[in-house]
Amino acid sequence: MSTTLFTHCTLFPGAFSAVTDNAYILIEGNHIAAIGPMAQAPPPGAARVIDVRGKLVMPGLVNAHAHCAMTLFRGMADDLDLHTWLHGHIFPAEARCISPEMVYWATKLAAAEMILSGTTCVADAYFFSALSGRALGDCGLRAVIGHGIVDFSVPSVPDPAENIATVAAFIAEWQGKDPLITPAVFAHSPYTCSPATLIKSCRLAEEAGVRFFVHLAESRNEIDMIIDPRGTSPVRHLATLGLLGSNTVCVHGVWLDDDDLDLVGRSGTRIVTCPQSNMKLASGIARVPDMLRHGIAVGLGTDGCASNNSLDMFREMDMLAKIQKVAGGDATSLPAQAALHCATGGGATLLGLADIGRLEPGYRADLIVVDLHQPHLTPFYHPDLLVYAASGADVDSVMVDGRLLMAGRRILSFDVEEAKARVRKLASTAGSAN
Amino acid sequence: MSTTLFTHCTLFPGAFSAVTDNAYILIEGNHIAAIGPMAQAPPPGAARVIDVRGKLVMPGLVNAHAHCAMTLFRGMADDLDLHTWLHGHIFPAEARCISPEMVYWATKLAAAEMILSGTTCVADAYFFSALSGRALGDCGLRAVIGHGIVDFSVPSVPDPAENIATVAAFIAEWQGKDPLITPAVFAHSPYTCSPATLIKSCRLAEEAGVRFFVHLAESRNEIDMIIDPRGTSPVRHLATLGLLGSNTVCVHGVWLDDDDLDLVGRSGTRIVTCPQSNMKLASGIARVPDMLRHGIAVGLGTDGCASNNSLDMFREMDMLAKIQKVAGGDATSLPAQAALHCATGGGATLLGLADIGRLEPGYRADLIVVDLHQPHLTPFYHPDLLVYAASGADVDSVMVDGRLLMAGRRILSFDVEEAKARVRKLASTAGSAN
Ligand SMILES: [Zn+2]
Ligand SMILES: [Zn+2]
Repeated sequence: MSTTLFTHCTLFPGAFSAVTDNAYILIEGNHIAAIGPMAQAPPPGAARVIDVRGKLVMPGLVNAHAHCAMTLFRGMADDLDLHTWLHGHIFPAEARCISPEMVYWATKLAAAEMILSGTTCVADAYFFSALSGRALGDCGLRAVIGHGIVDFSVPSVPDPAENIATVAAFIAEWQGKDPLITPAVFAHSPYTCSPATLIKSCRLAEEAGVRFFVHLAESRNEIDMIIDPRGTSPVRHLATLGLLGSNTVCVHGVWLDDDDLDLVGRSGTRIVTCPQSNMKLASGIARVPDMLRHGIAVGLGTDGCASNNSLDMFREMDMLAKIQKVAGGDATSLPAQAALHCATGGGATLLGLADIGRLEPGYRADLIVVDLHQPHLTPFYHPDLLVYAASGADVDSVMVDGRLLMAGRRILSFDVEEAKARVRKLASTAGSAN
Repeated sequence: MSTTLFTHCTLFPGAFSAVTDNAYILIEGNHIAAIGPMAQAPPPGAARVIDVRGKLVMPGLVNAHAHCAMTLFRGMADDLDLHTWLHGHIFPAEARCISPEMVYWATKLAAAEMILSGTTCVADAYFFSALSGRALGDCGLRAVIGHGIVDFSVPSVPDPAENIATVAAFIAEWQGKDPLITPAVFAHSPYTCSPATLIKSCRLAEEAGVRFFVHLAESRNEIDMIIDPRGTSPVRHLATLGLLGSNTVCVHGVWLDDDDLDLVGRSGTRIVTCPQSNMKLASGIARVPDMLRHGIAVGLGTDGCASNNSLDMFREMDMLAKIQKVAGGDATSLPAQAALHCATGGGATLLGLADIGRLEPGYRADLIVVDLHQPHLTPFYHPDLLVYAASGADVDSVMVDGRLLMAGRRILSFDVEEAKARVRKLASTAGSAN
């Protein structure tokens, strides 16, 4: 079992915690074995010692919703509304470009960006998900991977009648295959999946004991686009179909009225908010403070980087805290630490990963080291600066499950140059037809 | 005269322009002498040659409103409304801490952050402005420096009756002193300056031929706080006092009704928008697309980094474009290139600096080199990615007025470690009393 001793840490155990100076963290295997003041640090023995003097150690960030392989489409179509962007650009590009090769390499490129900006766990939602799993596994990230389901033909499942069987096979293959990868079901939305498809997707997830993800209530008029609507709002549509509950993760949840919030809260349904995507596509502003008041578990996601256009969760936390303040006209409505919680422990719980998102003995060793030697982090009065001033580029080192994936901003777990070159080559085809 | 030849550039001449590959840029002295395809590059002769293969060269960013010395207060008081933040925390901290020494070192620390994130020109607004001038001059940045005026006692001017004379002396000293530094007048706001003070400030600026800056219409209820209001809105207050016009720069302009927009537009008054500060303090969302439709010149500013908390103009551009889209429910309302224009040529024109903000022969050599070898900038289909995905940390090199201030992310013009150490020492006092 490998052992690592971080010495002279500026320790930030997680959201709502104080920062302490000059601490040690002992990692044994894949978990945190002990934390304490340097004066009480154990003798290193055979442990690898990493001196992080002047740097801050905090939990790795949890991106609770992304479409990793969409790095190939980043910046291909900007400044468009959701409908034009999706139907005029993204769906056609996907029909043209999605392949196992594309998913593998574009997901690896996403992994590079995520590691470089301090994300240690991602909930991916795409197609050819076995390739996403292989790519994220090869990079050493922790991931929950939802295989996509829509009612039309896509390159990964040309015949939509094969949808459920394809995803069931994906889940069966990946359950227990790689301890860092958890399969899941991702029904794209109630406007691309019929009620019957939504029900079958949700039941498949329940039977397999995996999460059920669905895009929901992203744009104001979504109810008008829903296939065979069974209620007067997207949430009531799901409720009528019996699909709300603690195994269901609704992504976006921008347009929820008070009744919707009650339904979501009482059923234990979870919500992932994607503020930058919602802003850039002019979809709207999710009622996150109201969700938290309703006891709803809220995670933070970047969405695909074709709509954002970044996978940097530091940027996303900052945007979440700021958009909520101005939306509610209340500078106290979503404090920095609440945003940080959504991006760490909150997202982890929502994904069913109870032992990440904080630095405490017994938790998995998913952590990042932030370099505080930066003019924009000087002086460092308070960890709120991690939300309002830090950026992904300040992350120096990344550890997942006890394995060092990056040190001194050099990615150790895979060949980033190869991923960039492969995606550039794919892009020369993808971009030309646009 | 020093000569620099940039070779193998990916050239982005400025907002709304196309990107061209494999260009050269010839710098002679402080200006751009020639630009063209590499095949037509002149023989280097005695020129310093900088090969920027795989990197993008674009105009340096113009931060049209900042309080540089407030780096000392960054993160000291977050998640508060404007009034509590200003009166409960910032004004008391300033009364305690502002000194010539504090202004010099905290401004130098801001300069480090600005250079590292690609800002080449800043409009500063603070006190002890001769020290801001010396600090920014020592760092090699271009700056417009507005000396602050308020009707109460501050460390720089204990007797408010000496306000106008103090600022007049500052202007007289700095006009023509350093070709990169332009003095200006900064009347803090109509709620800290009486009508008589505002009038004297504006007249002083006009007589000296310098810009007149004023915070205006930042919060919804500002009219209720204005000293001796002469109109039913902050803009009408200024209009009644005869203070609108092309020499006047109003900072914020969040709460403008249609009549205000008409008044501002017809008078040629200029506006600087500070979206992140307005979001974080829950002040509101400026009507930037409406301003542009009224023909108003709009610049982009970070405001002080105690309210933002970042001086990274890449982050600010991204926030501007996204907040405007979601505010108007229209993803086309403020395109990436319009945000980029506010942060370059738009801000430059507004500050009266007509020969910066674009890369064309005859313009000053204020430029930045952005490293495109990053996973989050791969593939690079379109320069909109500079707004939606790039961050200040992607800036590799910075040139101002033909002088290289940073190369390979190493600041060449001054000792950053010294500035950090000095501000850390000041912070140990500033923070303790809070
Ligand atoms: Zn999504
Ligand atoms: Zn200001």
